[in-house]
Amino acid sequence: MNYKLLGKILGKIMILESILMMAPLAVSIIYKEYSKSTFIGSAIVNGVIVNQYGGIKYILAFVIPIIVLLTLGILMQFPKPQRKSLYQKEGFALVATVWIVMTLFGAVPFVINGNIPNYIDACFEIMSGFTTTGASVIDNITLMAHSTLFWRSFSHWIGGMGILVFVLIFIPESKDGSAMHLLRAESPGPQVGKIVSKMRATARILYLIYLGMTVILASILIIGPLIDTNAALQATGIDYSGDKVFHALLTAFGCAGTGGFGSIPNSLQYFTPFAQYTVSISLLLFGINFTMYYLILIGKIKDVFRSEEIKTYFSIIIAAVGLVFISLKLGGLIDSFAIPQNYNTTEEAFRHSLFQVASILTTAGFSSTDYDVWPVLGKMVLVICMLMGAMAGSTAGGIKTSRIVMAVKGSYINIRKTINPRYVPKAKFEGKLLEEKTINDVFAFITMYACVFVLAMFIISFDPVNGTTVLINSDAGAGREVTHGFFSNFSAVASCMSNIGPGFEAVGPYASFSGYNWFSTLILTFTMLIGRLEILPVLILFSPRTWKKI
Amino acid sequence: MNYKLLGKILGKIMILESILMMAPLAVSIIYKEYSKSTFIGSAIVNGVIVNQYGGIKYILAFVIPIIVLLTLGILMQFPKPQRKSLYQKEGFALVATVWIVMTLFGAVPFVINGNIPNYIDACFEIMSGFTTTGASVIDNITLMAHSTLFWRSFSHWIGGMGILVFVLIFIPESKDGSAMHLLRAESPGPQVGKIVSKMRATARILYLIYLGMTVILASILIIGPLIDTNAALQATGIDYSGDKVFHALLTAFGCAGTGGFGSIPNSLQYFTPFAQYTVSISLLLFGINFTMYYLILIGKIKDVFRSEEIKTYFSIIIAAVGLVFISLKLGGLIDSFAIPQNYNTTEEAFRHSLFQVASILTTAGFSSTDYDVWPVLGKMVLVICMLMGAMAGSTAGGIKTSRIVMAVKGSYINIRKTINPRYVPKAKFEGKLLEEKTINDVFAFITMYACVFVLAMFIISFDPVNGTTVLINSDAGAGREVTHGFFSNFSAVASCMSNIGPGFEAVGPYASFSGYNWFSTLILTFTMLIGRLEILPVLILFSPRTWKKI
Repeated sequence: MNYKLLGKILGKIMILESILMMAPLAVSIIYKEYSKSTFIGSAIVNGVIVNQYGGIKYILAFVIPIIVLLTLGILMQFPKPQRKSLYQKEGFALVATVWIVMTLFGAVPFVINGNIPNYIDACFEIMSGFTTTGASVIDNITLMAHSTLFWRSFSHWIGGMGILVFVLIFIPESKDGSAMHLLRAESPGPQVGKIVSKMRATARILYLIYLGMTVILASILIIGPLIDTNAALQATGIDYSGDKVFHALLTAFGCAGTGGFGSIPNSLQYFTPFAQYTVSISLLLFGINFTMYYLILIGKIKDVFRSEEIKTYFSIIIAAVGLVFISLKLGGLIDSFAIPQNYNTTEEAFRHSLFQVASILTTAGFSSTDYDVWPVLGKMVLVICMLMGAMAGSTAGGIKTSRIVMAVKGSYINIRKTINPRYVPKAKFEGKLLEEKTINDVFAFITMYACVFVLAMFIISFDPVNGTTVLINSDAGAGREVTHGFFSNFSAVASCMSNIGPGFEAVGPYASFSGYNWFSTLILTFTMLIGRLEILPVLILFSPRTWKKI
Repeated sequence: MNYKLLGKILGKIMILESILMMAPLAVSIIYKEYSKSTFIGSAIVNGVIVNQYGGIKYILAFVIPIIVLLTLGILMQFPKPQRKSLYQKEGFALVATVWIVMTLFGAVPFVINGNIPNYIDACFEIMSGFTTTGASVIDNITLMAHSTLFWRSFSHWIGGMGILVFVLIFIPESKDGSAMHLLRAESPGPQVGKIVSKMRATARILYLIYLGMTVILASILIIGPLIDTNAALQATGIDYSGDKVFHALLTAFGCAGTGGFGSIPNSLQYFTPFAQYTVSISLLLFGINFTMYYLILIGKIKDVFRSEEIKTYFSIIIAAVGLVFISLKLGGLIDSFAIPQNYNTTEEAFRHSLFQVASILTTAGFSSTDYDVWPVLGKMVLVICMLMGAMAGSTAGGIKTSRIVMAVKGSYINIRKTINPRYVPKAKFEGKLLEEKTINDVFAFITMYACVFVLAMFIISFDPVNGTTVLINSDAGAGREVTHGFFSNFSAVASCMSNIGPGFEAVGPYASFSGYNWFSTLILTFTMLIGRLEILPVLILFSPRTWKKI
């Protein structure tokens, strides 16, 4: 292991994180959270009204980790590495380490300012942010400081395009394959059709596209009607009419990273239809492989329309929205249990269908309504979307559209071969012949995905939370009793592993992950990381072989 | 397509089925079911007591299909095929066709004697029999005639070792690869370490082992205490002290085929602890690759102990029984919902742990207790067992132990290769080098398994049964309300595809599949077939390419 070089890169990332943390620090100062007379928020906890006021801890929450990160990061620049390159193995291990270190430090502010007092919970929350999952352990979002909310949504935006990609743009260090190794370990999706060769330049362009799209989205949200402040006031007792730019920005971060942390109670339920449509469409756009935008920029629009993945992606969207819409319209006819959602108009049913499919398929995890009471058919469509995820090379999690396409084609080839052993496969993907190695990698990925999935579910089934009852208050009614059972755990793992956020039942859109004990929380935190880095880097980091001397 | 040869073989199978049907016909005659004064059974249906009496239809139920099968079968022997061999493709299509035809005719008796009036339900039931699933649509087993119960349990025994293997023993027809193609299409498990070369002789020996083991098991069950007749009398009002040989035989059929149809209400709940232990152990023995017994017979005991698959199999059993036992002992400590089962003694908790793990892992699906109220951990272990199944080359369904081992090794190789592209894999399985092709086949299988699984779940989520409530009366208490939701559908598909029988919740051990509508029933019927024939033959049969002229 080239520890010195690894340390140097890690140190750079830590410096970067300290710089990034200055943003929430600024937010904290702008909202005068340091002053004891500043009202932070209030909530009813166990029947008692709790009011939170400002204090110096809100500033320290960011100042302390910034100083520590900066100091450590600079110190780590001093040792001179003997070797200037990284092996593939080191690249993988480094990427996993970077994400873990980012999380360990990123969680500190929540603990210091007391918004999430338990450190493991705080790690869960910020890992959920960086991995763009959006699963939360926070039960009372109205008690959170502006800086806390900003930091967790900002982490979506940071994590969306990848932490290391970001670094690669600015650090002209690795001229050999090292940078490539890092990119390969961090970027989601299989290795087909990626523009990794002209890496540094490409990364910069991709980041600019990402930035540009975020700015456009934020502007639209700021200009248009955002929150239905009357509805929000009625339901929560809080007036959200003042902070429009703040909420628009946080929503834009969540969309861009396909993360899913909200900034007000009940996710996007109290947002205006205009905002909900805007978010749906931008989510779908952020779920597209960023290479496509690059192709559009350089004028190769035809290539975009020829892309098989994008065709499949849009076919899936249309089919899923249609099926969910039908299931909502048929309602009791195909499901006698589903609580009638009383969507007043067809438009409303359509809007929620579109919104939830976009939100789940792109693995954002925002919610505009309580989809947990939808008919089983609608839920099943969402579960399939959960596992599938959006396109490779986007900010989304999940198995990815391209892998699904290749798995289907691979299975077909496998069948043909069994019938006729002399059959020479000639299936194509994106115009290129599908190599056997690519297909096998996809199969191996899905198998490993399934193994990790089952293992995680198995571990969290030891949690005493199983079988407890949670009361859900949502737009489908108040006081619905939900039991934490198999489907809760299944959806919790699916949600974390695909970096979505909420699941169903006891971890549904109107519940949180706070019920799990520390060990399950830790396991689910790792599940998010495994999902985000697509299994291998994390496995390699924790493999004893990695740490043997070469 | 060599239709004439295919027809000839199919015809032979039909003759065979007509011969096999003479057994339940004999049972019908022995129990004098033709007489109108014979009491068949009674049950409370919708609050009304229904009494069933004999009649000529019970005889006709078998006589009619026997005559039809025999006539058709003989007629199909006349055309002379031009080509005396089968292509692999034809082999696969034939095997799937045979199973479907067997089912279409096998379902007829239930409809004629009125025990299962709906033909699709009857097809489900007998497919469940032949595929050794054991899932049932019968709500009132006490209304069933002896011949009905015998035929469905007997179908387990027939299906257990494979219908075509049976034929191969007696028909000295295919001297080239044809027979091999058939065997390959029908035998469960991947193609490693199978004794397919010396096929016919081997098949005969395997069948003799199967027969021998069944006879021994039946004898033990007949000699030892079988049903706790007092408990059964108290609970069901029916005296089961008279029919011991009948019930012992049916239970032995169910064990040997790892099927799972019971012969009295509540599966094996009212059986004595002795019978429950006997069944547990024999199930585990029938879950072993039959080649092992062959090796023991020819004195190669060392090879058995050296087998990786058998070691893994027993490790899984010990781990699973241990975990379930712990989950039952901890009970409320790890799961606040699980209804305390009030197992009086540690022995009882252990017995049910052993029984259910054996029953689910070997994919039999008998139940000795209502495991649906077990803690989530215990249920999760059972779900994993469901998907895994027992050893290849046994009578069990599921993914199979050997595939699990190979998938794990394959994933490891895949990781090593990603780290170091020049890595030459040298993983072994059963002493032989694991070829890349074998691993890829396993990966492809698991991926296809997952696809079919999700697809089937998706289709049955259209069923209006979703969301309905079922009342469950079991040893855990009476009148437990269960909602038909995601987990019910998940376990229904898992159960059918792995050829287990019962699932959880609304299709749990004390419920039935009768709630599903005709379309879902049909889909689940096919799922059983797909699971039993391990996907390919069914896909090939329904592929348009198969029917193109060569």
